Amino acid sequence: MTGTALEDRTDATPTRPPVAEIARRARVAGRRLAAVDTGTKDAALHAIADALVARQDEILEANARDLDAGRASGLDAALMDRLALDPERLAGIAGQARDVAALRDPVGETIEGYRLPNGLDVQRQRIPLGVVAVVYEARPNVTIDSTALALKSGNAVILRGSSSATHSNAVLADVAARAATEAGLPADVVQLVAGGGREELAELATQDRYVDLIIPRGGEGLKRALTGVATVPVIFAASGNCHVYVDAAADLDQAVEIVVNAKTQRPGVCNAAETLLVHRDVAAELLPRLAVRLGVAGVQLRADADARPLVEGHGADVVPASGEDWDAEYLALVLAVRIVDDVQEAVDHVEEHGSGHSEAIVSRDDRAIRTFERGIGSACVYVNASTRFTDGGEFGMGAEIGNSTQKLHARGPIGLRELTTYRYLVRGDGHVRG
Amino acid sequence: MTGTALEDRTDATPTRPPVAEIARRARVAGRRLAAVDTGTKDAALHAIADALVARQDEILEANARDLDAGRASGLDAALMDRLALDPERLAGIAGQARDVAALRDPVGETIEGYRLPNGLDVQRQRIPLGVVAVVYEARPNVTIDSTALALKSGNAVILRGSSSATHSNAVLADVAARAATEAGLPADVVQLVAGGGREELAELATQDRYVDLIIPRGGEGLKRALTGVATVPVIFAASGNCHVYVDAAADLDQAVEIVVNAKTQRPGVCNAAETLLVHRDVAAELLPRLAVRLGVAGVQLRADADARPLVEGHGADVVPASGEDWDAEYLALVLAVRIVDDVQEAVDHVEEHGSGHSEAIVSRDDRAIRTFERGIGSACVYVNASTRFTDGGEFGMGAEIGNSTQKLHARGPIGLRELTTYRYLVRGDGHVRG
Repeated sequence: MTGTALEDRTDATPTRPPVAEIARRARVAGRRLAAVDTGTKDAALHAIADALVARQDEILEANARDLDAGRASGLDAALMDRLALDPERLAGIAGQARDVAALRDPVGETIEGYRLPNGLDVQRQRIPLGVVAVVYEARPNVTIDSTALALKSGNAVILRGSSSATHSNAVLADVAARAATEAGLPADVVQLVAGGGREELAELATQDRYVDLIIPRGGEGLKRALTGVATVPVIFAASGNCHVYVDAAADLDQAVEIVVNAKTQRPGVCNAAETLLVHRDVAAELLPRLAVRLGVAGVQLRADADARPLVEGHGADVVPASGEDWDAEYLALVLAVRIVDDVQEAVDHVEEHGSGHSEAIVSRDDRAIRTFERGIGSACVYVNASTRFTDGGEFGMGAEIGNSTQKLHARGPIGLRELTTYRYLVRGDGHVRG
Repeated sequence: MTGTALEDRTDATPTRPPVAEIARRARVAGRRLAAVDTGTKDAALHAIADALVARQDEILEANARDLDAGRASGLDAALMDRLALDPERLAGIAGQARDVAALRDPVGETIEGYRLPNGLDVQRQRIPLGVVAVVYEARPNVTIDSTALALKSGNAVILRGSSSATHSNAVLADVAARAATEAGLPADVVQLVAGGGREELAELATQDRYVDLIIPRGGEGLKRALTGVATVPVIFAASGNCHVYVDAAADLDQAVEIVVNAKTQRPGVCNAAETLLVHRDVAAELLPRLAVRLGVAGVQLRADADARPLVEGHGADVVPASGEDWDAEYLALVLAVRIVDDVQEAVDHVEEHGSGHSEAIVSRDDRAIRTFERGIGSACVYVNASTRFTDGGEFGMGAEIGNSTQKLHARGPIGLRELTTYRYLVRGDGHVRG
């Protein structure tokens, strides 16, 4: 979602077992957890939430040490804010664990079932993946969020946070592990890999015998550190270069609100829009209005040659777009603007430059909408709505561990269901194949 | 499915474009193919079937050259048989392409759809993966089978067969590519990578910008050649170390038939049983009966110390089991036999030694069945039925490109549905996030 690379620092708690041993223990724990019933898993999540409150002083003390170290090493204000915990934030984290407990258990769901001509009954059923590793950056809340989602879906979890949150994560993981075990879950269902080094990350990423999935939540640096190294399947909680296309047949009032929302409502996240494509026929009417609204919100526009005269002089900062702007994920109050001749040109632009995350069309023309829908292969395609809705909570999945732009296994929000696999259960009465 | 490694020989048709260019063209072709309607895709599959018959002489001539080369290089009888085509086999391959045309198109299926509280309509829809590469060994029929499944599911296909079938595959791929284009599919939807070298395989496996999935259909040598090299997601059409467990509460008549079927009906395939686990309470009654039947079928038994006295002297060849037998995939008339004390010991054995493919329990005891079902994480779990049913055709999927034992994306038979991904289509009326 965000763009900082993981730090390479040394381990603050060098007494932990090696990565391979952590992974082996997780495999054993995951096998046992797969057979645990939903009530026990939910009780464990509530126990974790309770323990976050009961051990609040200890957690905040550890967090204060991380904040001191961050201040000393010159972490920027945004990172310091993401690192910081307080009683209110802790209560929020505990509340999220309780929210996950309230979700329906995906394990055991029969996805489909049918009877074959020979009388065999086939059921395709959800089962846990087994062991899920989550690699993440400064935010210590991810320690608990990821644990809650993994445990609820029946998976042992291996956590690997950044070294800037070493003390916070160590206490949070301990809180979760103890509470889970005391509530009746198997030992080792929650384990933390201490140490932020790249070698340890590579070791974790090659434990394919024991680890079923790695979800990295971080920027391009983390992606580069895993690509070409990992033998464990990886689903990146991806970045997004999202587009809004305003068609000739758009309701321009809606178009203005959707573009402003997609760009400014929370510019630092992966589902914020980065490029606006406008049909030539409505550009002269739409762009000046948009430039006023976006200018008020402090957005810089990087406009192509045709769009520039239409956005200049309306309050927004305007600079010429370069070729690189079409591929940029700004995660900031910057928007690239390009005029296109028709919906197909918009589709071609998205397919060439997009990251496959979320794209929106604003139009009343069914044919244009159909062309956009069918031409775009992104994880989420919006018609007359903001790209900002790409989110597990918004989609009714309750919670998410990130958003996937990959094509295999999970696309869009990665929720409980995406942390499971399936198997066929086939029942007969002495059936043999002829 | 079978165990020979891919040959490393030089390219017989050196004028083909380099792998990266083939992959890039496939990406463009796949984007176009995604928008083609089902009728046109089906017409293309029928055109391929027709062309296989119309160009029969040319195909058989090329096949004769491969057979001559195979004879000269001393290919064994089994491989020669797999390589050989004749008019009857060609008609069978054409018939399979027509069968795939008759299957329902997975593209466009709405997997689920719901309305959010804010009025947004969410649909999760199947779309093609884009570009699928299939790497396979001697059987030239895979060229057409894989093409039919890929095209029907809206994917461009890149084929990479073994050098022993170079001439056959070159003609078959040409037949398919020409017929597909003439029937109205985009250019380059079917492309062949000539040359059986490992470097070319590695190049194909790292085209992650253009290729969405590689499916290797081959043995451990092929697996080793890809593991640690591929950056493209890989789903292995896997080998199987499958188990049958006969419980204390089994119907022993059914048990005999299921074990004999699972072992002998087609011993060379991945869903054949390789290990028999027998509850101690029924071993003395079951094993002598089984030894007679398996002996008649020519099966060698590799029995543990407790089982040996019960199977010896009944006609079957019996040798002591070594530790390696529990992990072996014989793909031959060999069966490892072990006596266990209860269903949990059977579950533990399968989880330790199994490959996650297909396992069966024979029992009338609901509690034992439940323990087995819940304890086993394999792709297919059978109750009172033979493991031999793990097959796309048997499961009603119409056709398959192999069986997956991986946990991500596809498990069990890889059919049309498994060659697709999904995306969220979200429709609103000016919706913005608050």
